[in-house]
Amino acid sequence: MSRAEAPPADGEGPIGIVAGGGRLPLEVAEAVEASGRRVIIAGIDGEADLVLDHPATRTFRWGQVGGAIDFMAAKGVRDVVFVGAIARRPDFKAMRLDIGTLRRVPKIVKALVGGDDSVVRKVLALIEAEGFRVKGIAEVAPALLVSEGTLGRHRPTPEDLEDAMLAMRALATLGPFDVGQSAVVVRGRIVAIEAAEGTDRMLQRVKELREMGRVGGRGGILVKRAKPGQDLRTELPTVGAATVAAAAGAKLGGIVLEAGRTIVADRPQTIADADAAGLFLHAVAGEEQVA
Amino acid sequence: MSRAEAPPADGEGPIGIVAGGGRLPLEVAEAVEASGRRVIIAGIDGEADLVLDHPATRTFRWGQVGGAIDFMAAKGVRDVVFVGAIARRPDFKAMRLDIGTLRRVPKIVKALVGGDDSVVRKVLALIEAEGFRVKGIAEVAPALLVSEGTLGRHRPTPEDLEDAMLAMRALATLGPFDVGQSAVVVRGRIVAIEAAEGTDRMLQRVKELREMGRVGGRGGILVKRAKPGQDLRTELPTVGAATVAAAAGAKLGGIVLEAGRTIVADRPQTIADADAAGLFLHAVAGEEQVA
Repeated sequence: MSRAEAPPADGEGPIGIVAGGGRLPLEVAEAVEASGRRVIIAGIDGEADLVLDHPATRTFRWGQVGGAIDFMAAKGVRDVVFVGAIARRPDFKAMRLDIGTLRRVPKIVKALVGGDDSVVRKVLALIEAEGFRVKGIAEVAPALLVSEGTLGRHRPTPEDLEDAMLAMRALATLGPFDVGQSAVVVRGRIVAIEAAEGTDRMLQRVKELREMGRVGGRGGILVKRAKPGQDLRTELPTVGAATVAAAAGAKLGGIVLEAGRTIVADRPQTIADADAAGLFLHAVAGEEQVA
Repeated sequence: MSRAEAPPADGEGPIGIVAGGGRLPLEVAEAVEASGRRVIIAGIDGEADLVLDHPATRTFRWGQVGGAIDFMAAKGVRDVVFVGAIARRPDFKAMRLDIGTLRRVPKIVKALVGGDDSVVRKVLALIEAEGFRVKGIAEVAPALLVSEGTLGRHRPTPEDLEDAMLAMRALATLGPFDVGQSAVVVRGRIVAIEAAEGTDRMLQRVKELREMGRVGGRGGILVKRAKPGQDLRTELPTVGAATVAAAAGAKLGGIVLEAGRTIVADRPQTIADADAAGLFLHAVAGEEQVA
């Protein structure tokens, strides 16, 4: 199918998955396939890992954005979803660019110089200007989102839930500043707020602060939520086995997620890990209740 | 003078300095003495360092709070100021306590289990209940506070000042949550927010994130301000040579402080260091303008 043909209507044709690292791209692909649609996967070279095992994956370097777009269009993709971790921002200065990318490079560069969410919004606009519809995981694989309630064997105490609400409110106030996807609270005290470092690195810091005696008390929780106004089509807050291990390392009591807007990657394994580590894994309603 | 005698009126008698680590306790002592009042210094064992060289210093372990209080009262102290860094919270379980401390221990323990500012407020109330008046550095050594304007040789650009205002606003919204004394902004993006780790550790993180490619762009600023509602009698945000070195290590362009509510410790040396590192050191009006 060439790009000149009429694009398929909404809900037809394969879902295009632009894939970064981790297990989630593979899980999304499997959930889409379980729902009866095919997938076409453009793995980002140097970022995509587990998804490379999927037969529908082809990898592209950042310098080949044009090639990736043409590849997906040629396969009849109209609906695209972005999934997975990006460890580093691309350095366009060090890149050899393909023709299709060169043509688009001014827009891409413009998108990449802004802050986190502004980048995302600009990239979305760019992709949509190419004729794609950008979908969220919530639309193409809703089974992956967490629902309200406790996921594993352990349960939060009322004090844990109070601490969770404190963090939810603090993170909600940071929303307009495009920062704050997670925080750690220990007995009424916010001891860490996530910015560019990412959740796992923040938890490692809490571990070190505890070992140094700068964070006292026992237990404590990790709270993870979508930023207010965050474009959920591109970046759903996610916890997985690494998050559970890092939270256990920081001697926290558990993890509280925002229901309906966060994902537990590799859910059976992550829940089993939390159970084994003695951590609760719990989801509460987010913004409406606390903002 | 025994505690039974009438206490000296406000502004008379020596100033009591309860001293933690760093150069600031010594600078406060010198500024008080320059203003014509004597000092009595209770250095916290294991925390106080440079101030130990002052002839009016006597050290006390956390377990000897009672002894320190009696020592200051016996020297005629009525006005007390708390100055300097405390690297770790005391562990009362591991302590041998003097009689005066044992008597007060329920209140002290109650004070120390809360969050940062609530601890401070409770300790202040406790000290005041003992008949002391707790003063701030702003009262006893106002010359140490920074005024609006640029302190060294380098100047911020208008973009730097925009970034500073972004951080000031974000930190102001965190005030009710008793967290957020500093943040780092790189070209419109908040990349780090300080909680329990302290400013220098946060700057070390920014350095690492830059080396990993997770924080791009050039320059950027550290913004440090008093928390809204923070009790300035006990904890003034302070920058010094270590802050400048850490900011330079993170390849920032400069440091922006809240005028009138922050301190540059060892000012001549710190300014000289900033000049040599190519960093600006600048103070702007805080809360009223941005909250």
